[in-house]
Amino acid sequence: MGMIGGGPGAFIGAVHRIAANIDGEIELVCGAFSSDPEKSKQAGEMLNLSPTRIYGSYKEMIRRETELSATEKMDFVSIVTPNHVHFDPAKLALENGFHVVLDKPMTFDLAEAKKLQAIAKKGQLFFCLTHTYTGYPMVKEARQQVLSGKFGKIRKIYVEYPQGWLSTFLEGGDQKQAAWRTDPSKSGIAGCMGDIGTHAFNLAEYVSGLKTMKLCADINIVVEGRKLDDDGAVLLKYDNGATGVLFASQIAAGEENNVKVRVFGEKGGIEWKQEDENSLIVKWLDKPKETWRTGTGYVSSFASHNSRTPAGHPEGYLEAFANLYRNFALCVKAQLAGQTPKAEWLDFPGIEDGVRGMAFIENVIKSGKGTEKWVDFTV
Amino acid sequence: MGMIGGGPGAFIGAVHRIAANIDGEIELVCGAFSSDPEKSKQAGEMLNLSPTRIYGSYKEMIRRETELSATEKMDFVSIVTPNHVHFDPAKLALENGFHVVLDKPMTFDLAEAKKLQAIAKKGQLFFCLTHTYTGYPMVKEARQQVLSGKFGKIRKIYVEYPQGWLSTFLEGGDQKQAAWRTDPSKSGIAGCMGDIGTHAFNLAEYVSGLKTMKLCADINIVVEGRKLDDDGAVLLKYDNGATGVLFASQIAAGEENNVKVRVFGEKGGIEWKQEDENSLIVKWLDKPKETWRTGTGYVSSFASHNSRTPAGHPEGYLEAFANLYRNFALCVKAQLAGQTPKAEWLDFPGIEDGVRGMAFIENVIKSGKGTEKWVDFTV
Amino acid sequence: MGMIGGGPGAFIGAVHRIAANIDGEIELVCGAFSSDPEKSKQAGEMLNLSPTRIYGSYKEMIRRETELSATEKMDFVSIVTPNHVHFDPAKLALENGFHVVLDKPMTFDLAEAKKLQAIAKKGQLFFCLTHTYTGYPMVKEARQQVLSGKFGKIRKIYVEYPQGWLSTFLEGGDQKQAAWRTDPSKSGIAGCMGDIGTHAFNLAEYVSGLKTMKLCADINIVVEGRKLDDDGAVLLKYDNGATGVLFASQIAAGEENNVKVRVFGEKGGIEWKQEDENSLIVKWLDKPKETWRTGTGYVSSFASHNSRTPAGHPEGYLEAFANLYRNFALCVKAQLAGQTPKAEWLDFPGIEDGVRGMAFIENVIKSGKGTEKWVDFTV
Amino acid sequence: MGMIGGGPGAFIGAVHRIAANIDGEIELVCGAFSSDPEKSKQAGEMLNLSPTRIYGSYKEMIRRETELSATEKMDFVSIVTPNHVHFDPAKLALENGFHVVLDKPMTFDLAEAKKLQAIAKKGQLFFCLTHTYTGYPMVKEARQQVLSGKFGKIRKIYVEYPQGWLSTFLEGGDQKQAAWRTDPSKSGIAGCMGDIGTHAFNLAEYVSGLKTMKLCADINIVVEGRKLDDDGAVLLKYDNGATGVLFASQIAAGEENNVKVRVFGEKGGIEWKQEDENSLIVKWLDKPKETWRTGTGYVSSFASHNSRTPAGHPEGYLEAFANLYRNFALCVKAQLAGQTPKAEWLDFPGIEDGVRGMAFIENVIKSGKGTEKWVDFTV
Repeated sequence: MGMIGGGPGAFIGAVHRIAANIDGEIELVCGAFSSDPEKSKQAGEMLNLSPTRIYGSYKEMIRRETELSATEKMDFVSIVTPNHVHFDPAKLALENGFHVVLDKPMTFDLAEAKKLQAIAKKGQLFFCLTHTYTGYPMVKEARQQVLSGKFGKIRKIYVEYPQGWLSTFLEGGDQKQAAWRTDPSKSGIAGCMGDIGTHAFNLAEYVSGLKTMKLCADINIVVEGRKLDDDGAVLLKYDNGATGVLFASQIAAGEENNVKVRVFGEKGGIEWKQEDENSLIVKWLDKPKETWRTGTGYVSSFASHNSRTPAGHPEGYLEAFANLYRNFALCVKAQLAGQTPKAEWLDFPGIEDGVRGMAFIENVIKSGKGTEKWVDFTV
Repeated sequence: MGMIGGGPGAFIGAVHRIAANIDGEIELVCGAFSSDPEKSKQAGEMLNLSPTRIYGSYKEMIRRETELSATEKMDFVSIVTPNHVHFDPAKLALENGFHVVLDKPMTFDLAEAKKLQAIAKKGQLFFCLTHTYTGYPMVKEARQQVLSGKFGKIRKIYVEYPQGWLSTFLEGGDQKQAAWRTDPSKSGIAGCMGDIGTHAFNLAEYVSGLKTMKLCADINIVVEGRKLDDDGAVLLKYDNGATGVLFASQIAAGEENNVKVRVFGEKGGIEWKQEDENSLIVKWLDKPKETWRTGTGYVSSFASHNSRTPAGHPEGYLEAFANLYRNFALCVKAQLAGQTPKAEWLDFPGIEDGVRGMAFIENVIKSGKGTEKWVDFTV
Repeated sequence: MGMIGGGPGAFIGAVHRIAANIDGEIELVCGAFSSDPEKSKQAGEMLNLSPTRIYGSYKEMIRRETELSATEKMDFVSIVTPNHVHFDPAKLALENGFHVVLDKPMTFDLAEAKKLQAIAKKGQLFFCLTHTYTGYPMVKEARQQVLSGKFGKIRKIYVEYPQGWLSTFLEGGDQKQAAWRTDPSKSGIAGCMGDIGTHAFNLAEYVSGLKTMKLCADINIVVEGRKLDDDGAVLLKYDNGATGVLFASQIAAGEENNVKVRVFGEKGGIEWKQEDENSLIVKWLDKPKETWRTGTGYVSSFASHNSRTPAGHPEGYLEAFANLYRNFALCVKAQLAGQTPKAEWLDFPGIEDGVRGMAFIENVIKSGKGTEKWVDFTV
Repeated sequence: MGMIGGGPGAFIGAVHRIAANIDGEIELVCGAFSSDPEKSKQAGEMLNLSPTRIYGSYKEMIRRETELSATEKMDFVSIVTPNHVHFDPAKLALENGFHVVLDKPMTFDLAEAKKLQAIAKKGQLFFCLTHTYTGYPMVKEARQQVLSGKFGKIRKIYVEYPQGWLSTFLEGGDQKQAAWRTDPSKSGIAGCMGDIGTHAFNLAEYVSGLKTMKLCADINIVVEGRKLDDDGAVLLKYDNGATGVLFASQIAAGEENNVKVRVFGEKGGIEWKQEDENSLIVKWLDKPKETWRTGTGYVSSFASHNSRTPAGHPEGYLEAFANLYRNFALCVKAQLAGQTPKAEWLDFPGIEDGVRGMAFIENVIKSGKGTEKWVDFTV
């Protein structure tokens, strides 16, 4: 794999590298780690890359890698830059036949996302958008159980993602993460809703298997001086008639990354939260609730495929992230070998999730500004 | 005390009696337990009341008790009938100088509530509306901490009350509780929002000390054939600029009475839920979260006044309910003795909470039916 | 009921009165609340007792009550004095035909306990020892599930009761509770082991249905200057071959009343703790663990008989305590009416539990002082 | 690094490789993965090793690696074989100047452990014993807080490790893990006590900073036909006068890997359990308990050094394991560079932990068989 972005100070780049490393199956072979060639070089050296494959720009990287032999060149590229530098490198990579792993949200705006979708589709290329939470074994288990129909028709979804880290005007200092995430020229039209609202939105659709049809949003800028939303709540209507509530906040002081999803059907439902990542609570109308656990013998193949240790040895965020990489890489490998990937491997967030996420951003911001109650979810 | 309603099959009547009994300070001396005199008589006998003080109707009861001497007659009346039989007996009691404990929601509609408010005010009578959750020691502690200003300005409130018991068409059978609660002629214009939405609404205003200014509601009838809402979610704007999310459901299959409130300020916030009723989670932007506990030496006087056992011996719903009765009775007793009640005693839900709760019902149903996004919260 | 002890400053007397009050079925009619007649009088007046039935001593009370007519006199007596004042009043009450509720541990020493046992047996009198924790609905459910055999043969028991309140030399000040509990002339030969070790011991035998055969104890006085043990741990062997671990401490600084029991059989087991009193965790070798809850429709008759509110409205320590009183009173009432009490009513801790608890104290202290590993559990 | 053991079917070998991979700083360069050269070859190929560095035996590997140049040869060896194949390869590696990572328990018996200790000491070599639980950030935080003295003198330790996986006679089938762990010729004299009792023992000493002086053990073989203990409980006396309770079981049906440690001092204490691995509960005698969390800004340098993601993104077992490798590797690297390792790097379980663990096994089995109450902890 090659990496674009992820130089010094970039939190998520390091996370991507760990996730790719864990199973010892993916090797970082090249990178363009910064728009500053000198910084890129330093980063590459620290990562023990061959000097010839540390590039000064993503354009150089894709051009040069394209010229290498099939066995030599990177199999896919991982793009971990801020939102406004997603589209160009992804487009170039896809056009040159490279599979792509891309950090969420997919692009700067919905139009870009649709363009990428078209290109990827044409090239029959794999595309992974890192909605990490769907990589947890118990989130996969949740989806399998909901889709199995055991709870009857789904009626209600609650999904929430409270954080507290932007409770103060952090972007006024030199916190790089805060700076670009609150800057409309880098993040796009949404702050909180783009950064974590999209995660919540994706998690709800992933676990329930439903599609959003209408929404009604209250979008707020709470911290004085901030340019993008740092808080919001959304009422949702799904395609089967179910309704939902989504809320995300970056000013819930004292919260860490407390993402949680609840789905209720006619007979029962599920609850999962990152703070107890290896448990899936299954509730029933008329019998005791159950706690399903990662790594046990009784979970579905989708859960056990995404687990690395025996039950009770907690598997965390990095393993969830690694599951995205592993499944993506298994698919790429299968394609290279002319084989059909298994259903379990194909179960990673892809380009349609990305496009829907961008549509969420546009619709939610539109609703937040409007006076009409319900906005149609248009893609 | 005298009781109106609470005959055979009436769940909440028994709860009121336990709550009044706990401290051995309140004696049930008379009652009109049913609109059927025979049933009233049976109920009174089972409760070991003197036959002369078991009445055939609330009118008879109030008339006859009024005629008794000051030392003999009941000091206050507790009304535990369905919503549509709140106003008349409460009005009559107040007009005859009896203090009143009334089950929530206050009345059939807002107009009735305002009339009661006027009468009670004129008579300088105590009025307690049983928003039980505000009787928990840790809910009182939460309010004290929030009001103290230690978290800075309040920015965000989440309050939720998911239940699952009405997931099926229970009113189709002979479940008395389900029957009247889903019947518009007995419950009024709201089902879920009146029954538990008002609890959530009250809890949020009580803990935060804020007043709702605007709301936007999604109100649903989920179970086929049902006549009143069994699910809803509301976006809220408060008088200090804070925003909120409230949701309540009776079709969250597998949930019991999972009421929970979170309030966030600039520096931290609180979280309380009935499932861990004796813990108050206090969160901070930059230090470990704390768990404050009922019955400890370090809590406020408002919390310790409402606690009966040493820390670690859980105090539950009945004790919270009993706290309402105890504080109300302490105030009545103080008034009788010509004394000024303490602030801790006066801290029970009263007539203004009741009026605001009825206004919540009317506004939330109006919003649920409307197409405009925000509805002003009018009282 | 009549009460012996429980005057001013006596924590547990107030708890007993609340427990007896809750259901409105038991009336406090007389009392000898203190060995000081004046204090007894004051206490009785505060409790609104008729002056003629406030007695100056327990001897006077039992003599005078005995002389009253069957309909007038108290049906039973509740004794809530410190340990060294258990035997004499209990003996006198039993000898005069009064049923007895007695605070644990049963007596000052094992010999006294056996004498009471003989007297009670002869008189066919009901005797309730307030091992409160066995009054929780989910503890009753635990016992029913274990006895049902669903977990196979029981193999292992863990029971623990850490407290922190005696972490300092509290008896050096004027804390009345600490003073008598650490005084060998009032508590007997054990401190922690008598006060809370007996609870843990009883809870383990109650839930498992097993009897202790051997034990090996480490008994400690941790706080300097203290005269009785404030900490201990015990290895146990049960009559079916199972083994166990019991520990109790009053110097586990920061713990409240964190009693917890776990029982494991061949196929699974149960876990219950007071900090989550309304949940019973049921674990299985090869399927998800379950959370059984108070007040639900799926629990056993033993659990539902001991529950007062719908699921999700927590029932706490006082309700557990009230269950002891209610079941005891139901049995007394049945006997008075010449009826056979139901199995659910008879399920309260009785005189055999009391005798075994006293035997536990003697054996555990003997083991703590000895050098041999295993001490036979002799009664 | 080179690996000895960890071929097909060996659970822990894969875990070691993941742990070493995570940070991308340690490269697997050679291995002798099985005593069967053919299987070793297959394993090495699957791991993409150069064929010249896949060895048929550990002896060959150490001999050949020793002959390579300093820059070429492996820096250290990781030994992940069953207990009876720990000593010989570790000895050979140390004697040839290779640093060693060794799976616990250290050796087959205490005598072997002491020999290794002598050799390692002489060679000034780093030695890491994989007591994984001490790699969790919050376990490190616990130790730092306890050692800081903030809780006063430590008085009581509870440590427990219940598992349920050996509840049936699993070794009767073809479960490889169960087979060697219950076989005295491979595991040594202890089963449960060696496999997980040593973890609990080490965790207690690590967090408390205390040394065990005496112990009293109840050691059981519960499952019929089993040859080694599958359950046990131990009373402990520490060098500062504190006492403790340790229990470990493999027949606690329904438990996963539920290791938990509690340490109490005069003023408060800590609690940590693997099921909530990123929280450290800090308890106080007279103020609210606190929850300290991985990845926050307020934890000690020892905790933050061992954390990879922002707070709220759970870090699990593999990261804890990786912390051992990372710290060990940082020390090795520092030594190679002639630098002094930081205190945070040196904080991994070493050869003294290993020797004490073997002494624990011998003493605990001796006590389990004896009739005397207390056995001196001899090393």
